[in-house]
Amino acid sequence: MATIKDIADKLGISPSTVSKGLNGAHDISEEMRKQVLDTAIELGYASKKIKSRKHLNLCILINEMEYTSPEQFGYDIILGFKQAAANSPWNIDVIQVDNDLMHSESYDSYMIKNKYHGAIMLGFTMHSPWIISLSHTIIPTVTVDTHIPYNDKVGTVGSDSFEGISKAINHLVKLGHKNIAFLNGDKNSQVSRTRTEAFEASLRTNNLSINQDLIKYGYYVLDSAREYVHIFMEHNATAIVCASDLIASNVISELNRMNLQVPEDISVIGFDDLPIASRLTPRLTTIRQDRKNLGKSAYILLDGLMNDVSISKMTLRAQFIERDSTGPCAY
Amino acid sequence: MATIKDIADKLGISPSTVSKGLNGAHDISEEMRKQVLDTAIELGYASKKIKSRKHLNLCILINEMEYTSPEQFGYDIILGFKQAAANSPWNIDVIQVDNDLMHSESYDSYMIKNKYHGAIMLGFTMHSPWIISLSHTIIPTVTVDTHIPYNDKVGTVGSDSFEGISKAINHLVKLGHKNIAFLNGDKNSQVSRTRTEAFEASLRTNNLSINQDLIKYGYYVLDSAREYVHIFMEHNATAIVCASDLIASNVISELNRMNLQVPEDISVIGFDDLPIASRLTPRLTTIRQDRKNLGKSAYILLDGLMNDVSISKMTLRAQFIERDSTGPCAY
Repeated sequence: MATIKDIADKLGISPSTVSKGLNGAHDISEEMRKQVLDTAIELGYASKKIKSRKHLNLCILINEMEYTSPEQFGYDIILGFKQAAANSPWNIDVIQVDNDLMHSESYDSYMIKNKYHGAIMLGFTMHSPWIISLSHTIIPTVTVDTHIPYNDKVGTVGSDSFEGISKAINHLVKLGHKNIAFLNGDKNSQVSRTRTEAFEASLRTNNLSINQDLIKYGYYVLDSAREYVHIFMEHNATAIVCASDLIASNVISELNRMNLQVPEDISVIGFDDLPIASRLTPRLTTIRQDRKNLGKSAYILLDGLMNDVSISKMTLRAQFIERDSTGPCAY
Repeated sequence: MATIKDIADKLGISPSTVSKGLNGAHDISEEMRKQVLDTAIELGYASKKIKSRKHLNLCILINEMEYTSPEQFGYDIILGFKQAAANSPWNIDVIQVDNDLMHSESYDSYMIKNKYHGAIMLGFTMHSPWIISLSHTIIPTVTVDTHIPYNDKVGTVGSDSFEGISKAINHLVKLGHKNIAFLNGDKNSQVSRTRTEAFEASLRTNNLSINQDLIKYGYYVLDSAREYVHIFMEHNATAIVCASDLIASNVISELNRMNLQVPEDISVIGFDDLPIASRLTPRLTTIRQDRKNLGKSAYILLDGLMNDVSISKMTLRAQFIERDSTGPCAY
């Protein structure tokens, strides 16, 4: 069993500095404190005496994502983040960021001025000034679904679109579907592009041909259903996979307007499993994003970044939830 | 501020059960305890009163990886894992697993019999019986570099080969190299395949042609250098990227045997940044795998899996370390 003197000798510092490091004193540098702790553990110093980290401030920055009700995408992410942080002594603020703020002040300067040590960013598009500045930020930062290459201070969490979409396609293929359409989200988001790749890869795995008339980018909330559903039907789609439950809800309305029944005439699959999914008629088959665990993972990743564990990506499993909006292919 | 009664009402259980959950008592189920904690946090119950997890046993299972000296690949992974676990009350055993054991007993039965609640597996090949059984295991398990699809109980940690290799290729291209060879590791490992994809993608990004005579799979330690270096030279390679520092060391010896100087006649890049890399002549330029942080990430991931956070992958940044084994292209 190592002593304080062993640690001091190995690091070439005084035993009293080692003591301070082990006791979480505030008058030595964070870097020295970490070195002392890591060496203590390497040498087998009894870990019960090691004090935990000091007080820090974190923030959850929100641009265009709804989060105030459990019905909305952001709510569970924030809840999961706070649940994972519950055993830490850290203070967490939730802050709405608008475009004016982003244009008037740089991200790093905002964070430093307000004494935030780390952040998770929700709902920012790839073109937001603060997202663009992440390639050079010095602030530990976690994004959702937006991978920032080459900067050790930034990491991203997301669901495994490949696994999620491949479960959905396998389900449809088992039901006899061959002409499967994909109504994606915003073309300018990273996750939409990944999902198109996943959709095409999954068709190939099932020996189905890829028809670009059946793959359309829309927007997450607007009337892309009105625009594209009739095109899918003209090209004999028997199933439509959607990039969100809200899109799927609009698709079902549009199909009903065309006097088509779900799932008798056509199957529909959503994405996310928001609470609305199980209240639609018919109840929506969907690919579940575990938003609470996305939030927990975001915390875990941020905690890593703040401790010099340069995690670039954390990927969560996507679950497939079978309900009533999918059925045997009728044709 | 929520009270114990609020939590009890929301969950439809008695206040005394809530109390037990908050105090970490052992006579309620782990699932109920988690529900109480999560609800307490959702309702805003003062988090300081929440007790941490109870005692668990974890193990580090090692098949074919050397780990007893800091010179060896596994040493820092294990150290990092233990450092990350230092603030937990968990007991961690390191266990050598041989093929006899794997053939005589299933993975799950071994773990349950020995009361292990989770494991990290190091050095197992894709064909090991215990790796194959991971697609159906019920034990939270972390692998290194081996992704197991579709099982929520398993996650993998690894370095970002794409980013690492692209940094190496960009470095060589800046030095004027165009005929770059890649001496990879074992063809039957997942990470080798990923690295070949990364190598080819990076050549394409730099508008270099892909020549299959310059891409060879070897083994991580044996004499693949003896077999392939002269083939690379016959095809006019001016730089060789290797899948490990040990391969790079053999490549340099082989080049010297052929009376070729590194980096004057040809550049060589390793992978891993083991301690040997900075002691070679010339000192080796290499792609660093942060093994200590791989170990820390493995702990973080395992902790997540044991708390129903189904992380499937954690990817770490790979650093590029420029030393003396790379230089301007001579041709």
